[in-house]
Amino acid sequence: MSGFELHTQLAADTAFVTDAPLCRVLLANDANFPWLILVPRRAGLHDYHNLSPDDVAVANDEIVKASRALTALYKPDKINVAALGNMVPQLHIHVIARFTDDVAWPKPVWGVAPAKPYMPEVLEARLDELRRAIDAA
Amino acid sequence: MSGFELHTQLAADTAFVTDAPLCRVLLANDANFPWLILVPRRAGLHDYHNLSPDDVAVANDEIVKASRALTALYKPDKINVAALGNMVPQLHIHVIARFTDDVAWPKPVWGVAPAKPYMPEVLEARLDELRRAIDAA
Repeated sequence: MSGFELHTQLAADTAFVTDAPLCRVLLANDANFPWLILVPRRAGLHDYHNLSPDDVAVANDEIVKASRALTALYKPDKINVAALGNMVPQLHIHVIARFTDDVAWPKPVWGVAPAKPYMPEVLEARLDELRRAIDAA
Repeated sequence: MSGFELHTQLAADTAFVTDAPLCRVLLANDANFPWLILVPRRAGLHDYHNLSPDDVAVANDEIVKASRALTALYKPDKINVAALGNMVPQLHIHVIARFTDDVAWPKPVWGVAPAKPYMPEVLEARLDELRRAIDAA
């Protein structure tokens, strides 16, 4: 993982959940949606297809585990998975639990509503339950 | 691929490019963006993590090939990859070539601008070049 450094914007907008074998797993600090962000810990990646074939396989395992953890914990109506990166160029993959009554439904989440930071004690509890659910997924 | 039927909304909004081993590859009929949509030809899939591990591997190979084909043909600034499905429940994966001067940049493409259908002869030429580029990717 030499040379990997988390983009400052991703660091500012998220809380650390765990380091999976390939990706750093982050929680977006936005109580509007249970929203994980997976960042492959490789330097210089921009697009999803820049991942090596081996890394694609591991990243997908981690995407699926993140999706299952969100599903087990929050029973969402839909999981959105996306690697966009138009604003923050470092490759990062969104895995977002969506509900038919969430603030952005049925639109994508980006740019719809201002982020609603978690209360500190709620954030800690959420990080704990996510760590357990990802381990179990 | 028994029981697979393309959702009528996806059929209405796209043109057929090719059938890859797992996915039907479609071109969004929107000249604003070179925009492929990959639909795994399995019945009853909604979320990305519903794919079997074997199908995840094949789907990823096809996502990477679609990304490379778009990159080779159009030299975009970014590729966006996303499985959202809030509007159309059938699992489908967007692979979109983005440019810093496109109509939606840096926002995600959905809902920003009305679709701009291709002229028929432009559409045919684009489908041809995409078929060749995906074969070569």
